[in-house]
This record gives sequence, C-alpha cells and structure tokens, in this order.
Amino acid sequence: MRTAFYISDGTAITSEVFGHATLSLFPVDFNHKTIPFVETEEKANEIKALINATAAKEGEKPFVFFTFVNHNLSEIIKSADAVAYDFLSTYSEKIQKELDVAPVPKMHRTHSIHEKSYDFRIDAVNYALMNDDGGNIKNFSEADIILVGVSRSGKTPTSLYLALQYGIKAANYPITEDDLESEGLPKCLLPYKHKLFGLTIDPERLAAIRHRRMANSKYASIRQCRIEVREVEMLYKRHKISYFNSTHHSVEEISAKILIDSNLERRKY
Amino acid sequence: MRTAFYISDGTAITSEVFGHATLSLFPVDFNHKTIPFVETEEKANEIKALINATAAKEGEKPFVFFTFVNHNLSEIIKSADAVAYDFLSTYSEKIQKELDVAPVPKMHRTHSIHEKSYDFRIDAVNYALMNDDGGNIKNFSEADIILVGVSRSGKTPTSLYLALQYGIKAANYPITEDDLESEGLPKCLLPYKHKLFGLTIDPERLAAIRHRRMANSKYASIRQCRIEVREVEMLYKRHKISYFNSTHHSVEEISAKILIDSNLERRKY
Repeated sequence: MRTAFYISDGTAITSEVFGHATLSLFPVDFNHKTIPFVETEEKANEIKALINATAAKEGEKPFVFFTFVNHNLSEIIKSADAVAYDFLSTYSEKIQKELDVAPVPKMHRTHSIHEKSYDFRIDAVNYALMNDDGGNIKNFSEADIILVGVSRSGKTPTSLYLALQYGIKAANYPITEDDLESEGLPKCLLPYKHKLFGLTIDPERLAAIRHRRMANSKYASIRQCRIEVREVEMLYKRHKISYFNSTHHSVEEISAKILIDSNLERRKY
Repeated sequence: MRTAFYISDGTAITSEVFGHATLSLFPVDFNHKTIPFVETEEKANEIKALINATAAKEGEKPFVFFTFVNHNLSEIIKSADAVAYDFLSTYSEKIQKELDVAPVPKMHRTHSIHEKSYDFRIDAVNYALMNDDGGNIKNFSEADIILVGVSRSGKTPTSLYLALQYGIKAANYPITEDDLESEGLPKCLLPYKHKLFGLTIDPERLAAIRHRRMANSKYASIRQCRIEVREVEMLYKRHKISYFNSTHHSVEEISAKILIDSNLERRKY
C-alpha cells in the first residue's frame, strides 16, 4: 500500500484533513502517517530520510502533504523522493493578490491555544460534562442548546463534539419512559423549549447499541426500542421541537446539522 | 469585515479547515460563515443569492472555499460574485496523473459514519467518559493510554479529544496529595506503567484555573499549586514517565504530542 505523509511544524491537522480529503476522492487505499512538530532542520532531514526509505521499500513515491512556516524546512521536505504538495502556498499567492496584503506566516496560528475561541471551547467541554445526561438542570439557563432523546440516541458524543470543536455549551437530557407516558415535556425543560433539539434513531440500531450495554434486557429489546422511538418522535412533533435521525450520521454530521438548523454561531477561530 | 464562506454538500469541515488555515496566513480579520449540506440546485442558488447580497453589502467580494461532489452545484457557486476556490480539484488533477486512476467522488466520504474508524471513535468516547478521573480502574487493561496529573492539569479535555478525533482509548487518573506524599505511584497504576503519560502545568496557570472552580480555597492557592506541580514532576522523573507541560498548548497540540511520543496509531480513517 502506498504511503501518504502529513507533515508540519505544528499539529499537522490541516495537512491531515486536506490530504485525506483529496486522496479519498480516489478508490485507492493508503497507509496514512502523520508527523507533527517538525521544527528543526535536523528533524526535517530525519523525516526526509524516512520518506526516502519508504519510497525505496514500497517501490513508489509516497505522497507528502506539508505546511511549514520556515522556508528552509519546506525545501528539505520538497527535496525528498516523494510527490510533495505545499498545498497552502498555492492559494496563499492567489489570496495575496486579491487582498493586496502580504502573508505573515506565524508558528502555531491554527489549532493552538492562541485562537480566540480556545477558552470558550474548554469551558464548553467542562459544561458538557457537568450537564451530561440531565446531570445539573440548574445550569440550563447557560446552555446554548439542550439535546434531548431516549437513552443511547447519540446525545453525549454530540454534546462533546459541539463543545470541543465549536465552543457550544450543549447540555443533554434523557427522555425516560415516565416522560413518554405522561406525553408532556419534563418540567425542568419547559422554560427552555426554544433551546431544545431532539435526536432520534432507528429502533433496530438503538436495540443493537443498547444490547451491547445491557444484553438481553427489556431496555435493549426491539419492542421497547420501537415504543420509545415512536413516542419520542410524537413528543417532538407535539411540542414542535426540531429533531434529526442520527442513525446513518456521524457526530460531525449531526453537529453540523444542529448548528445550521438552530442558527448557532460557531465559536471556532 | 470581509466575509469568508465555507460551503459543501457535506459537513463543510474540510472547506473550513483548509480555508481558515489559508486565510490565517494573512494579518486580516474575516467574518467566517460555514454552510453545510448544500445538496440541491435550489439550495445552491439560495446560497449564491446570499453571497451576492454579502458582496453588495460589504462592497467587496467574499472569499468562498467550496467542495461539491455534484458538478452542477459547483458551477452555481462559482458563478456567484465572489473569489471562489474549488480547492480540492486543483490537487485531484495532479494526483490523478500521478496515480493513473480516475477520481470517483462520492457523497459524504469524509467525516461520515462510513469511515472505518467511526465505531472505534464512539467506543473510545464512551470509554473516556467511563474512565474519567480514575472512575473505573478495572478497565485500565483496555486503555491505549492513561493520562496522569494533578487536578485540573488538562487530562479530561485531552482524553476526550484523543477519543473523538482519533479513536484512542484514553483513561485518566488524578494524582492526589496522598500519592505525592508517599512518593510512589498509586498501586492501581503499577501494572500499567508503560501506558502512563504525565501532564504538568505552570503553577500560576493551575492556580488561576482552580480559582475559577473553587475561589480562595487551599486547593487553588499558589503555594499548594507550586507544591503539587513540583512533586508531580519529581514523581514523573523518578518513575521515568514521559510528560508534557500543557500550559501554553491546546488540546490539539497536547494530543498530537502524546500520539507521536507514545507511538500510538491514530484510528482516524
């Protein structure tokens, strides 16, 4: 399998995301290797040797997606036996012309603690943890959004993703059988109806997930899952709560959907 | 402030990461707008109208970073009054020549539930939550890594990031004053010494973080923080545990550092 390297003087997250997205357009498997924090010429030469050894072993040139602030490091990596792409610089030249402003490359400008949103993101993670699974309903006034849904419909990973990536304070609250029986919203949610977003999931998938947690229980039975899902969807409709079926979607997709539907601003940069 | 749009038929995460990284090379502020799930010509025309209205209002063309699987949608966005970059296609042509394989664009190939690593990532999130703050030491045999450190040194957000982004099962365990007094590693950690990774933090920063949690307590005092930090670093050295000072680093940077130092494979794609 051909190797693809993602290399940078920072986290290499940008190289990784861009390189992987580009390569995934092709029906070919790659061996992905991320190498962050290549900050000295010595280290760059070491990585060049690794790339060359990989080329020799695999009999074809590895792909290399790289970004460096220091031009000398770029030159070292470019001289390796590889198909190497300095992908940011292609567009930075175009943008320089458009803005009529010269680029001022700085170390660790992205994915660092210096991004304005960083403290928001860490606060939001702590908030999501403290307000997971209905943990602390007195904090709901602070929430940007409150995810609701039956047990194991995807609320927790989604809350954490919204917090970590976007600095959104996402609480989550489980809708229980008692709530479903009464057909009303739990009292503690009533003042925050405008912040609610519902998750639902196909009963078969829900049963499989619950089964892994508590095998052969009533909780995991397909009958129980069908009842809960049908009733929770009725609840959403009755109270005009936006909702989304998470069955075939990743936390990234569910989160993007929630942000756009709820018109929430990402605290990202 | 000039607007930068990140637009896609999927989550638009790739556009966002690439566009933001490119623009951040310039000392200019932008108004960032992400628009995911533009999946129909009707929706694309609606977004085109929004871009045009933004151009008219701001008196300069917005930047637009976009990716679409459907060529017709690309054409609609390209025809807007903007500086628009179809940034993946630039490289996909080069890579096609190199691979001698035609691209097969598919919807939602990245950041979706169809990525091989998706189930790993969700399992790892559940693992990180269950094993947060020494929660469940009987599961340590399953851990890929166990983060240790004094209270509030950054263990929890880092564990969650490693899990969500990379599918790494990261437990975390707080080193308490009792542990520091005895100068030994907590017994439950002894069998897993090879999995330990320490976090440390400057005492001033630690005191500020603890102060927000428990103002004017002994726990948050600078004296207490200095003692704990000095002793925990001695503990790491005594037991030859790799460690990293998190003070000036983001969870992205801390995670990248841990992965490369511990030689852990990312379960990412």
